[in-house]
Amino acid sequence: MIVLIMAGGIGTRFWPLSTKETPKQFLHILGQRSMIQQTVDRILPLVDHKDIYIVTNESQTGLVREHLPELPAENIIAEPMGRNTAACIGLSAVLLEEKYENDETMLVLPADHYIGKPELFRDIISQADAFVKEHKKLLTFGIEPTYPATGYGYIEFGREIRKDPIPIFAVKQFKEKPDAKTAEQFVKSGTFAWNSGMFLWRIDSIIEAVKNLMPVLYNSLKEIKDCWNTNKNRVNRFYSGLESVPVDIGIMEKADDSVVVPINIDWNDIGSWQALDEMKQKDKNSNYFEGNVLDIDAQNTYVYSTDKNKKIALIGIDDLVVVDTKDSLLICKKAKSQEVKQIVERIKKEDQ
Amino acid sequence: MIVLIMAGGIGTRFWPLSTKETPKQFLHILGQRSMIQQTVDRILPLVDHKDIYIVTNESQTGLVREHLPELPAENIIAEPMGRNTAACIGLSAVLLEEKYENDETMLVLPADHYIGKPELFRDIISQADAFVKEHKKLLTFGIEPTYPATGYGYIEFGREIRKDPIPIFAVKQFKEKPDAKTAEQFVKSGTFAWNSGMFLWRIDSIIEAVKNLMPVLYNSLKEIKDCWNTNKNRVNRFYSGLESVPVDIGIMEKADDSVVVPINIDWNDIGSWQALDEMKQKDKNSNYFEGNVLDIDAQNTYVYSTDKNKKIALIGIDDLVVVDTKDSLLICKKAKSQEVKQIVERIKKEDQ
Repeated sequence: MIVLIMAGGIGTRFWPLSTKETPKQFLHILGQRSMIQQTVDRILPLVDHKDIYIVTNESQTGLVREHLPELPAENIIAEPMGRNTAACIGLSAVLLEEKYENDETMLVLPADHYIGKPELFRDIISQADAFVKEHKKLLTFGIEPTYPATGYGYIEFGREIRKDPIPIFAVKQFKEKPDAKTAEQFVKSGTFAWNSGMFLWRIDSIIEAVKNLMPVLYNSLKEIKDCWNTNKNRVNRFYSGLESVPVDIGIMEKADDSVVVPINIDWNDIGSWQALDEMKQKDKNSNYFEGNVLDIDAQNTYVYSTDKNKKIALIGIDDLVVVDTKDSLLICKKAKSQEVKQIVERIKKEDQ
Repeated sequence: MIVLIMAGGIGTRFWPLSTKETPKQFLHILGQRSMIQQTVDRILPLVDHKDIYIVTNESQTGLVREHLPELPAENIIAEPMGRNTAACIGLSAVLLEEKYENDETMLVLPADHYIGKPELFRDIISQADAFVKEHKKLLTFGIEPTYPATGYGYIEFGREIRKDPIPIFAVKQFKEKPDAKTAEQFVKSGTFAWNSGMFLWRIDSIIEAVKNLMPVLYNSLKEIKDCWNTNKNRVNRFYSGLESVPVDIGIMEKADDSVVVPINIDWNDIGSWQALDEMKQKDKNSNYFEGNVLDIDAQNTYVYSTDKNKKIALIGIDDLVVVDTKDSLLICKKAKSQEVKQIVERIKKEDQ
């Protein structure tokens, strides 16, 4: 099995800490190791460094090398620009196919998720790996929902394909982020899981699927492969013209042989400051402070300051996220921390 | 008439903008000119620069000279340390008495108040000046209350001494900051005014009053005067031993000949960030922003940032004061901005 880690995130959710220059996967927001380092650490018991690949934006290859010096430099696949997951997975598959046996499997992982039960995660991957190697299915992992989340997409299970050693279902359909009522129905039904964005398949299976289901993409990827090391301008021209589609929509949903494995691994995509806050140990007033903070009656507040000498005084405030960096300050009602993305959009427009 | 401006404030109310090094009187929080400059500008139509004196802490004499270069350097009276208003007024009076005629009057003004009707203010001062010159009374100005403030002290009127050209009452008593219910009674009665901390008297009257009502202070001031220019150590020793009492309590309240002139001059002592905020023109969401602010649904929020390039993003917040400087950040529920003082106290303790 080889591992492809998708590290093309562009740094909008954790602004002002994450930026275009340092997106979330490179932040040390959960412990000493960055998110991308933790993603590698987690999978290392199953694979060698030489079989771990990172697909990322070319502007971030320096950061990847810095965070993962153990990886061979040629294992970093540098996209000229982001074109969503069907393109980056397809590109990686066509670039790697000759390097491996026909039946080699490829585990695809986002670079910036949290998994609280890594051992269980690896056990299930090993079982799933044996399955896709034999059956040539396109497999995704569905997180068993613990509450009716409206911030995740869902996968609906079809018929059960097998029960042991791990349950595997056909994929019935993918669902976009639902409203609260729909989310509740999904969770109550017991036939939906959260879409984790993790996939497992044989390299030949995914290439075959791209060829059949996204033929325009496939042809462009072939062109790109042919000039990958020889004609950068041509690569850029073709890559910029690629359709920007998620692999779950472009491939998984259309394929006849998509399957989903439900897993319960204490997973969190940490998609916002609020989500990160929920993972932190709080003080007696439900505050979490990282910085030189003094407070009078602050409650339920998250503070992150990059300058540990700067004095931050909070008086009588409640339910806020405060993030202070040298250049920027965010003060946000916790439940609205998803809207940070809009701020980043506005700054981008202003800077143009 | 000479003018004594008391500029000994120590910079706690407007932290983190005001500090021990730059207290409120030196801030440009209301327009282009600092508070102390505005205090001088306001009174200049009545007096010459040469007759305006500043009593301040010796650590702030440099700042005073910088803000008021038109004043003769010798008009800055430098206290070795703060000992409240009875001491600083008494000191100034004994140091100046020989320089002026016996019947010269002295207007005493805080350096950091706002007055919206300066012309009316000067008119009343001129009338009051004629009165104290003739009658040797100790006069204070009582601000006609516009709402039942709990953040000010009050003065209760006694019998009316005269009606024209300006009404003058005997002082019945001074009252500390009242609770809300008491404040309402005060305002409803029509016989209370806010204690503005502004005074007017003949130099000989105030010296006489100090001698009679605070004889220990008087004797120490005489000692201090004798060695003022010759023995700094002795000055410091005596000054540090002075009783620390406000002039309204130590002198005005005990004197038989205290009078109060009610005035309605759009006055504000700007005692907190909230008070400053109330003076600002707001946008349609009741926000006031000084800085590079982007917001989504921010309401009723005051932002002051010293770094105009720093991006400040507000999402979904309400009713806050946000003050960001290079070294410090304050985020405070508006109604609690008085508690900034406690933060300053805590920082002082930590720094010791």
